[in-house]
Amino acid sequence: MINIHALHHQTTIPYAYAKDKDHLYVRLRTARDDFSEIKVYYRDRYLTKNIFKIRSMKKSYRDIHFDYYDAVLDLPRNRYAYYFLLRDHEGKVLYMDERGVWEKRPRVLRHYAFPYIAEEDVYEGEDWLKKSVCYQIFPDRFHRSENAEVVIGEKKLSPWGDTPTTRSHFGGNIKGITEKIPYLSELGITLLYFTPLFESTSNHKYNTKDYYKIDPSFGTLEETKELVAKCHEKGIRVVFDAVFNHTGHDFFAFEDVLKHQEESRYKDWYHLDSFPVSKEKVNYYTFANYIAYMPKINLKNLAARQYLLDVARYWIEETGIDGYRLDVCDELSHSFLKDLRKVVKETKKDAVIIGEIMHEAEDFLEGSELDSIMNYPFRHAMIDTFARGELSLEEFFQVLIHNQTIYREEITHQMLNLLGSHDTPRFLTETRGSRVKLMLATAFQFLYKGVPYVYYGDEIGISGGMDPLCRRTMSWDREDWDMELFRFFQETIRMRKENDVLSEGDFQVEMISGKVFSFSRNHNGKRILAFFNLDNRLREIELKEKLTGTDLYTGENVVLDGSIKMKGLSFLAMEEKTRERLDKEEGSK
Amino acid sequence: MINIHALHHQTTIPYAYAKDKDHLYVRLRTARDDFSEIKVYYRDRYLTKNIFKIRSMKKSYRDIHFDYYDAVLDLPRNRYAYYFLLRDHEGKVLYMDERGVWEKRPRVLRHYAFPYIAEEDVYEGEDWLKKSVCYQIFPDRFHRSENAEVVIGEKKLSPWGDTPTTRSHFGGNIKGITEKIPYLSELGITLLYFTPLFESTSNHKYNTKDYYKIDPSFGTLEETKELVAKCHEKGIRVVFDAVFNHTGHDFFAFEDVLKHQEESRYKDWYHLDSFPVSKEKVNYYTFANYIAYMPKINLKNLAARQYLLDVARYWIEETGIDGYRLDVCDELSHSFLKDLRKVVKETKKDAVIIGEIMHEAEDFLEGSELDSIMNYPFRHAMIDTFARGELSLEEFFQVLIHNQTIYREEITHQMLNLLGSHDTPRFLTETRGSRVKLMLATAFQFLYKGVPYVYYGDEIGISGGMDPLCRRTMSWDREDWDMELFRFFQETIRMRKENDVLSEGDFQVEMISGKVFSFSRNHNGKRILAFFNLDNRLREIELKEKLTGTDLYTGENVVLDGSIKMKGLSFLAMEEKTRERLDKEEGSK
Repeated sequence: MINIHALHHQTTIPYAYAKDKDHLYVRLRTARDDFSEIKVYYRDRYLTKNIFKIRSMKKSYRDIHFDYYDAVLDLPRNRYAYYFLLRDHEGKVLYMDERGVWEKRPRVLRHYAFPYIAEEDVYEGEDWLKKSVCYQIFPDRFHRSENAEVVIGEKKLSPWGDTPTTRSHFGGNIKGITEKIPYLSELGITLLYFTPLFESTSNHKYNTKDYYKIDPSFGTLEETKELVAKCHEKGIRVVFDAVFNHTGHDFFAFEDVLKHQEESRYKDWYHLDSFPVSKEKVNYYTFANYIAYMPKINLKNLAARQYLLDVARYWIEETGIDGYRLDVCDELSHSFLKDLRKVVKETKKDAVIIGEIMHEAEDFLEGSELDSIMNYPFRHAMIDTFARGELSLEEFFQVLIHNQTIYREEITHQMLNLLGSHDTPRFLTETRGSRVKLMLATAFQFLYKGVPYVYYGDEIGISGGMDPLCRRTMSWDREDWDMELFRFFQETIRMRKENDVLSEGDFQVEMISGKVFSFSRNHNGKRILAFFNLDNRLREIELKEKLTGTDLYTGENVVLDGSIKMKGLSFLAMEEKTRERLDKEEGSK
Repeated sequence: MINIHALHHQTTIPYAYAKDKDHLYVRLRTARDDFSEIKVYYRDRYLTKNIFKIRSMKKSYRDIHFDYYDAVLDLPRNRYAYYFLLRDHEGKVLYMDERGVWEKRPRVLRHYAFPYIAEEDVYEGEDWLKKSVCYQIFPDRFHRSENAEVVIGEKKLSPWGDTPTTRSHFGGNIKGITEKIPYLSELGITLLYFTPLFESTSNHKYNTKDYYKIDPSFGTLEETKELVAKCHEKGIRVVFDAVFNHTGHDFFAFEDVLKHQEESRYKDWYHLDSFPVSKEKVNYYTFANYIAYMPKINLKNLAARQYLLDVARYWIEETGIDGYRLDVCDELSHSFLKDLRKVVKETKKDAVIIGEIMHEAEDFLEGSELDSIMNYPFRHAMIDTFARGELSLEEFFQVLIHNQTIYREEITHQMLNLLGSHDTPRFLTETRGSRVKLMLATAFQFLYKGVPYVYYGDEIGISGGMDPLCRRTMSWDREDWDMELFRFFQETIRMRKENDVLSEGDFQVEMISGKVFSFSRNHNGKRILAFFNLDNRLREIELKEKLTGTDLYTGENVVLDGSIKMKGLSFLAMEEKTRERLDKEEGSK
């Protein structure tokens, strides 16, 4: 019995979009296992003769409920008319056209149309981004440079290593980060994201006082330029944090509003409820609710908008950074984000824009606004599954596949898959100190689709609950480090970078059995298989076939002859080299 | 048994969007009849306490397969977190959050987020557009002004009334249209759309030679300004045709390319395959395939783009027109359309942009590009059902409801619902001359959701097949007219304009029985009911309840006491005035 309600296609993302100027991607969703074959019939929309090209569609995604088939089409002038033919396991045929599902071929199929691929509309993704391993630094807490001088106006510093409060300043600085570039290279990361560097009174600096000035306690413009340049020398890209949702209350425009009230030329830069504006009454929009020191910017105001666009251009031109992470990105307007993208891309063609968005964000990721978000839905799923065991594996993959299938393919490879950040408890704390669970989660994160993202210190075993505890200082005394954990991170990062299939391949769940699962990543004939046992005890799982290959960590040969035996809380990642499969794949081409 | 596969929500159009700066619209889709109650729980996303407002959702759309529930939410700062609770007929409860469907309430519901309504992103629709009755004129064929002088360079004119060929010129002109404004007022229409007026060698003028000049055979700039001004005096809005997909081959830029080839400064204004460019080889992109005299414009080129944007601004400023209909709109780039919208709206705040798109067009109608399209999917459905009887009524409404539910609410009221145009056979020809079927289709069109659209001459019984036959001259000899048809159009237009519920209300299919159906339109406590019998023979249908009201055409009382008797090919439209229902509605508030 075919589930008609499950059938879905639309002529927009993520079901139809230009992959590049010469190729159209199309997708069709069906209930799981309902069909044996799906074909797309397509032709130039102006060809009045009904001569169609036919393409078999490939099952590229699958979750508990659905199968997702796709195909990539091309035509000389890129003007597509198409419809689908679906055949179920009994040979029954359905047609799908833009009017619906037909059990009998109608006299006229009203084709779906993807009328034209305009080159200026195409989103192709950033190759360097998807190949990155990201590392987040909270500058006040990473490293204080040797012989750093006390800067005038600097707050009293807490001793490095103390437990932080919401108001502590530890004196980490830009020169300190530069001094630790060798460490970042040793670890192997390739993309640095700093929380804000611009002048601000707080330790986190999300209340910007001056968008054009590096905070004096962090250092100077020259030191910042040097940091970026030296990162680039070592093959490390750099992304700044841009806080465009709100300013600090001490930003000149808001100060002007407080001073001149209704007479202020900046009064339309903010969302004011009434006059007189007062920090005590908080009668204006802020970040979150009534956070007086973070007044929300009115992006409808063109002067305010232009000010921020100029800021975005300035820092790329001045320092050569590779893009921005936008704070509270989901409360910026789409209209502003489209303008921002134009400015950023004009200034540096391969710069990227990453949104801080803590939930699914289809509207921001269709290609004309962001390149990526901090993938909190991924983190939530990892916590609930790897740390807490609250989600079944079926539910876990349901969430992950949903998190993939609502976006265009390019975006899924660019999502910043984090396990924690300065706004969450650290993963090691979520696991109640189980470093093996952190290692399992990290392995999964690096074997999964999307950009792995490490929060500074996770790699040496730092723990900590919600802010401020997740913002402890980094330790530079290797005696303090969990060296086994550190070496595991190094190995995992190396493994990721050595295998392009991890940054480019598909993702297929192969098997779920209780708390054991396996998945594959496939690209250009290469195939990586991973097995995870989230159970505390030894599990032995039968396999459908004999598997041979190479362990991605040790390089040793792996032979799985009909079953795999896994001790509690363990994983195996291998490149499969089964001759039989390779032959089969060759044959089916 | 609940159909899980049918459940759908997304945080984007048409399932979640700002209705205005203070209201969020949310929609949820389920399998038809699966649930007895659906509620949305919502709160400010920053309120950490889980105190939710609760709203019952209303079933606003229904088709063969699905029910669509919706609700409109509001919160002080417009930052929404929400989830759904669904209760089936046995009392079983499901939860839906951004991660999926849960049969047991999970420990943490990961709410859907509509993070913020930014005023600059809101699309509210154009009130005047949805209240319009549109009339299309093909200027060469509508009316030639009294004592029109032969214009130099004008082609030899065919005698008015002759059967047109693809090359005929009949001499209809702008002054001629102005002279017939009293006729348009008599008919009652409120929005005029002209096919192109700019200089061009063809009779249809879709190959623009000069975007800044009214074609001399049509008249002068002054006459055009007078036409627009006089229309406005009579409450008739005016929309011009803009051909921005391609130029004529005699447009200065393409002529320059032909002359200077690779040296031409305009070579990037077109999509050229190779040099030398030649009209014989047609080695460049054109409208459709190899239409040498219509070279396609490269909208990626910023100079070409600016040229067209300036044209768009010029005609609004110069003549005061109310917007544009864009030819081959679906092959313009989204990037260009977004720029065009800004220019048009800056120039005239309530001007509209209507796309010629012959298929569903979600991507163009989300609010930042077009206000409407010529609704060809509606026409196809009308032809297949009212003219040819090829679609069952179930299929017919499936297509129509699909055509509504893929767009945001405001857009469905603004769709230009046509029965024919200069690019299709006339409806009277599609019915093989059955004027009663034309009348039925027209009645439906005017009782349905969206802007009714009349192609000149349909109202007096002109027939004609595909181009050039659908482009016959209008007759001004009332002896030739089908006066009964004309009066029917007048009455139908009056009826539409007198009942705001038709331009603002919902649309509910009430009953389908063979070839008989009824539907209702509801708004602000007003309710219009319509019954159609598409069968050739008398049909009597039992009703669920006694209905009383007023005939919208005759104003007479209607009493339907348990059944309705309808002769073959007939309809009844009434405003329902059942006391019982009114009482019930009052009670349920």
